[in-house]
Amino acid sequence: MRINIDEARELSKSIFIKAGLTQSDAQIITDVLLETEMRGVFTHGFLRLEWYIDCILSGGIRTDGEIEAVYDSPSWASVDGKDNLGIVVAYKAMQLAMEKARETGVGIVNVRGSHHFGAAGYYTSMCAENGMVGMSMSNGDVLIAATGSRVRTIGNNPFSYAFPAGKYKKIVYDIAMSHTSDRKIVQFAKEGKSLPEGWIINKDGCPTTDPLDYERGGTLMPFGGYKGYGLAMMVETLAATLSGAAMTRDVHAWNKNPAEGGNVGHFFMALDVSRLGDPDSYRARVDGMIDEIKGSEKAVGVNEIYYPGEIEAAKMQKCLSEGFVEIADETVASMHSAAKKVGL
Amino acid sequence: MRINIDEARELSKSIFIKAGLTQSDAQIITDVLLETEMRGVFTHGFLRLEWYIDCILSGGIRTDGEIEAVYDSPSWASVDGKDNLGIVVAYKAMQLAMEKARETGVGIVNVRGSHHFGAAGYYTSMCAENGMVGMSMSNGDVLIAATGSRVRTIGNNPFSYAFPAGKYKKIVYDIAMSHTSDRKIVQFAKEGKSLPEGWIINKDGCPTTDPLDYERGGTLMPFGGYKGYGLAMMVETLAATLSGAAMTRDVHAWNKNPAEGGNVGHFFMALDVSRLGDPDSYRARVDGMIDEIKGSEKAVGVNEIYYPGEIEAAKMQKCLSEGFVEIADETVASMHSAAKKVGL
Repeated sequence: MRINIDEARELSKSIFIKAGLTQSDAQIITDVLLETEMRGVFTHGFLRLEWYIDCILSGGIRTDGEIEAVYDSPSWASVDGKDNLGIVVAYKAMQLAMEKARETGVGIVNVRGSHHFGAAGYYTSMCAENGMVGMSMSNGDVLIAATGSRVRTIGNNPFSYAFPAGKYKKIVYDIAMSHTSDRKIVQFAKEGKSLPEGWIINKDGCPTTDPLDYERGGTLMPFGGYKGYGLAMMVETLAATLSGAAMTRDVHAWNKNPAEGGNVGHFFMALDVSRLGDPDSYRARVDGMIDEIKGSEKAVGVNEIYYPGEIEAAKMQKCLSEGFVEIADETVASMHSAAKKVGL
Repeated sequence: MRINIDEARELSKSIFIKAGLTQSDAQIITDVLLETEMRGVFTHGFLRLEWYIDCILSGGIRTDGEIEAVYDSPSWASVDGKDNLGIVVAYKAMQLAMEKARETGVGIVNVRGSHHFGAAGYYTSMCAENGMVGMSMSNGDVLIAATGSRVRTIGNNPFSYAFPAGKYKKIVYDIAMSHTSDRKIVQFAKEGKSLPEGWIINKDGCPTTDPLDYERGGTLMPFGGYKGYGLAMMVETLAATLSGAAMTRDVHAWNKNPAEGGNVGHFFMALDVSRLGDPDSYRARVDGMIDEIKGSEKAVGVNEIYYPGEIEAAKMQKCLSEGFVEIADETVASMHSAAKKVGL
């Protein structure tokens, strides 16, 4: 459904205000969800709004937006999100990392006591928009198998980095650790197609290309086998072990029980590139790298080689110039359901 | 060939001293190569020694071991390796990162003007041995295709992290960005076996499972498709763009021309975990995570679930307890050839 951007923004903001958020926190989460939606990452946009509201109404998520630094030093802090909305906590934590980077060149912020933080790429984009390199990650519910396991062992932990460029838009890389989402497995099953090798294992832990094996007790595999498994562990450790957040099976990032805090952990880093030299020269070097890669010989049938975030930036640009964003019907319905729940 | 560890150490050290390194720098590179060999990562161990010597003898690598900080601040520095041996430069850069982490909690060091730095995991291990989280990466010669490209576009950029644990040995993750090495492709071709999907593309940039297509102008693919491509770009940018090192096609990490400096770039980070709380409690949490993962239900046919670095640590332990290391015959021959070249 084609929705006017201002209307979508107003609806989201008024729902969160009615749910108890301050004006400015409602603005933060709305900006994050709207931008994510415009970038075409619909799985992390307004689709999640009703779930956040459910958690707020059940008491699992607090709305005062107050976070507490439990450790603070010029370049490194650790923050307790105190069961607030993950997106609000993450935004404020990355703001803190950027403040530190402005002062000292480097800002790192660990977080515990948070919740699902949405699109990891939003926070790194904040850095790139401010001439900084950004890194962000979060742990989450166990969802993917460790190499050698037959069950869900570790979170499908999101990881993002971003770099400012010059003539090009910022580079924004934003991934989860599975080869693909469970939605895509279901789609393959519907279409009666075989999966590529390595995407899932069956209930015995054996490789399978039959998408129906997923419903029969199969599990998503990390991308690239043990290499993806190891990256998921890096996120678990940087985001959760250091900060004192819940780990692996103890995490609940989602609606397992909306009335309970998730104690999700995050990790944010900001580096101010201007410390290492003239920022224009840095930007020219990033442009040069992108020129080189985009200009390389293309595979047969390929029209364009993209850098991370390029496609999403084009989608967002289109939305902004038209003033409209395409939101899935089920998502719009879910937003209206959330509005009703908060009494709008 | 089974070689006494002390003999291997003495041979390596005397070759590097004879090539012009100081006693302590010859000790550093020998320690790195020997430990890498004992961990079973033979591609980055003594196999490379003769190539390093060739570069030194041709003047492409300097031997005074002096590096220069071109930017320095309490938590962040950028260093010019001045065309010294990459391993010596990397070791000193990570030492500097760890000094900063001891003072401020965080230490980040960017490097330019370096050379092939061997096994990324050695430097992160240094952190873990000292109660720190470590991260290391380096760019390199273009070797893998970007998604959509049919040619070598970006380096097979190594990436490593390490975490200290308690009852378990440190977690050490050390990967390159390709699905597999070209050696393995050649092995599949010899054995007449098909490759798994996604490992290489043919000369037109199309997916292929025929290992012979590699010799016919094919290219290695990043692991996990665009996810691996994006990680290679992260390393390129953190390790090279920031520091002013050569990028993509301008890098030469290897023996393209042994007489020329490589201007390779690296990135190192050290975080002192004791800043965020009691280190024993941190170690217990890492052990708990590993217990959880290793104790999860195993796939059929799997005897053990490993964490990153566990297998390599066991191999090294075996070498140390026996006093011997297994070195490939061709590697031993190459070490003797290097010894002759320096006049030993």
